[in-house]
Amino acid sequence: MIEHMGKRAKYALRESIHKTSEEIDGALMKMAQGIRDNQDVILKANAEDMRLAHESGMNKAMQDRLLLTPERVEGMARGLEATAKLPSPLNKVLWEREIREGLVAKKVSVPLGVIGFIYESRPNVSAEAGGLCFKAGNSVILKGGKEAFYSNRSIVDSLRASMKESGFSQDLIQLVTDNSREVTRELMMATEWIDVLIPRGGPGLIKSVLENARVPVIETGIGNCHIYVDAEADLLKAVPIIVNAKMQRPSVCNAVETLLVHQDVAGEFLPKVREALSGVELRGCKKTVKILPDIQEASMEDFATEFADLILAIKVLGSVDEAIEHIREYGSGHSDSILTENRNHASKFTREVDSAVVYVNASTRFTDGGEFGFGGEIGISTQKLHARGPMGLEELTSNKYILEGKGHTR
Amino acid sequence: MIEHMGKRAKYALRESIHKTSEEIDGALMKMAQGIRDNQDVILKANAEDMRLAHESGMNKAMQDRLLLTPERVEGMARGLEATAKLPSPLNKVLWEREIREGLVAKKVSVPLGVIGFIYESRPNVSAEAGGLCFKAGNSVILKGGKEAFYSNRSIVDSLRASMKESGFSQDLIQLVTDNSREVTRELMMATEWIDVLIPRGGPGLIKSVLENARVPVIETGIGNCHIYVDAEADLLKAVPIIVNAKMQRPSVCNAVETLLVHQDVAGEFLPKVREALSGVELRGCKKTVKILPDIQEASMEDFATEFADLILAIKVLGSVDEAIEHIREYGSGHSDSILTENRNHASKFTREVDSAVVYVNASTRFTDGGEFGFGGEIGISTQKLHARGPMGLEELTSNKYILEGKGHTR
Repeated sequence: MIEHMGKRAKYALRESIHKTSEEIDGALMKMAQGIRDNQDVILKANAEDMRLAHESGMNKAMQDRLLLTPERVEGMARGLEATAKLPSPLNKVLWEREIREGLVAKKVSVPLGVIGFIYESRPNVSAEAGGLCFKAGNSVILKGGKEAFYSNRSIVDSLRASMKESGFSQDLIQLVTDNSREVTRELMMATEWIDVLIPRGGPGLIKSVLENARVPVIETGIGNCHIYVDAEADLLKAVPIIVNAKMQRPSVCNAVETLLVHQDVAGEFLPKVREALSGVELRGCKKTVKILPDIQEASMEDFATEFADLILAIKVLGSVDEAIEHIREYGSGHSDSILTENRNHASKFTREVDSAVVYVNASTRFTDGGEFGFGGEIGISTQKLHARGPMGLEELTSNKYILEGKGHTR
Repeated sequence: MIEHMGKRAKYALRESIHKTSEEIDGALMKMAQGIRDNQDVILKANAEDMRLAHESGMNKAMQDRLLLTPERVEGMARGLEATAKLPSPLNKVLWEREIREGLVAKKVSVPLGVIGFIYESRPNVSAEAGGLCFKAGNSVILKGGKEAFYSNRSIVDSLRASMKESGFSQDLIQLVTDNSREVTRELMMATEWIDVLIPRGGPGLIKSVLENARVPVIETGIGNCHIYVDAEADLLKAVPIIVNAKMQRPSVCNAVETLLVHQDVAGEFLPKVREALSGVELRGCKKTVKILPDIQEASMEDFATEFADLILAIKVLGSVDEAIEHIREYGSGHSDSILTENRNHASKFTREVDSAVVYVNASTRFTDGGEFGFGGEIGISTQKLHARGPMGLEELTSNKYILEGKGHTR
């Protein structure tokens, strides 16, 4: 099955290579309108997924992620329009040099090729990921979660119909409709057809793809994020930052999971932050519990966990070095922040913390392609190869060198 | 063993993070001088490898690759000096944006981390790869071929001594001295310690690493390169280009392996090229054999082979599309060239041929970090992720986002 889809994906890619960025953007606008026109069909398909989710006893948070509403459908359409309006990442001359007299070398951005995108739950990701991969000139094979099967299928059908109307091959966006493990395994092994796999979802999904794929993978999204409140922090600024990072949207990967506090300010600061974090379960180290005696003691496990919930681990420590060491030990390389007015501490932290995004005096919640102005994102890379941090259109391209000579020999 | 080396590599990386590029360049100059000072020791070690190679009946070409001479040792020293003189690829601001009033986001180049470099035969690669990885701020674990064991050890010992004298941790360059398969397997699975594996060597090595590694790999160097002589080629330019691409250094990956010739010019061109390629064994398709009746007929296998030798496969075909299709079928995505005076054919070829480097009217031999002005190369990537084409210092870096705010929340 994947071989069949892979061949079609490659063939579609070949056909689309002469399309202009205006044609691509026109197709994206049509895809947006198509999603609007098909709102009823999409909502009906989603209702079927919701019915099955309810029957299977899926928890409320998961059900909320799965649910589509007219507003969320409109959101997908607007996302596609926004993608259409972004500058094309293709055919950019990234570097140029005359390497011999009359022999000019250019490095030009080109599509990555065939992208395998494996994701969970939120069906609107189908439109977002499909649109971004398409805009960057790629062919994408989408493999959504089985809980969103009907929703994903109706969305992808709509996208494909609009692409066809716009003169593109439908096979630039394909959805795997077989949910068996065997097909997922095939997808992960299909080095002949797929240039890169991007998993987006929970730690279980990411880990499974990393361990089983032979196709190159871009690791995304596990976010065990930290905020360190330095002895020289402005404590008035610190409280709202922590509230924002923990409470605004606790389920996302850029939410803070562990608060590190310098011992010199812990006595003053921790009671304040507890008051502000009402509704958040706190789990603290021994020193924290001395200051906040009624909270639970944190285990090593707690410091290693991405709660993705209204839970916060707290550790009191003695220096910026100890904070860096803790993050090195427990962090996932996603987003970490220092709150301090001391420039040396700030620059030590940004230099030594080896994470995709490092902050000074700001909430970790800004780690997001939209916030960075990338116009959406395909995921947040926590690895160092190819892309690190929020991945937008540029990260969905590769490059090619083109050398034009006049009979040059070496 | 790899765990032990990996820990040391990571620890060394941490220590070196505050070194300036001037300190790095100073150490590289000292490493160059150290190689010169140790010339006798290195040549003696190499003599031991050569003795064993001779005993084991290694072929002449391999023996030549293994051999070190005073000139080759001096070449290593000069290579290190050239690397010292290159601009540092680190701490470059690659992108900058004020994403909220007073909240500035910067994308900054940083080291990749710990690089595992697996290579064969030529011992001078130890100095070249070690120097490039070091210059880009990385820690490298070198795993050379067992045939070059004594040479590699003496070179790496010399580099490490110079690093130590310059105030750097020696563990920024380590050599695996255990040649067992078990250790190679450990290296390929060490995701906790190693950020990326770069294999450089023959197809067997590359394939084995790609199939067995869990650490992300940058695929390098298999070069089944093509030159297509179009109906509208300037045949006078074409002959020296093909001679250069095939004969100047047939063992390297950017040498041409298959010549594609348009049928309209084959009758005139093939006898000329045969005359110029004296000493090269030609293997042609049926149409070629009609024109050059005394050459051997090429098999499908021949078109799929990187001969790395004075052998050239030849196919006669009917259009630039057929040439592109042949390259799609048999090429390795390394370097391919079209010889034509027709602009449309040239741009069709450069657009549709999906290779790292695509040429118009030039020899494929220019695919080389040195030629591109990168000051050496760690390898030539034939994959699309992270790096494609010759990989210099820039390709040995990753990036980090740094956001400095004033109490910003989302």
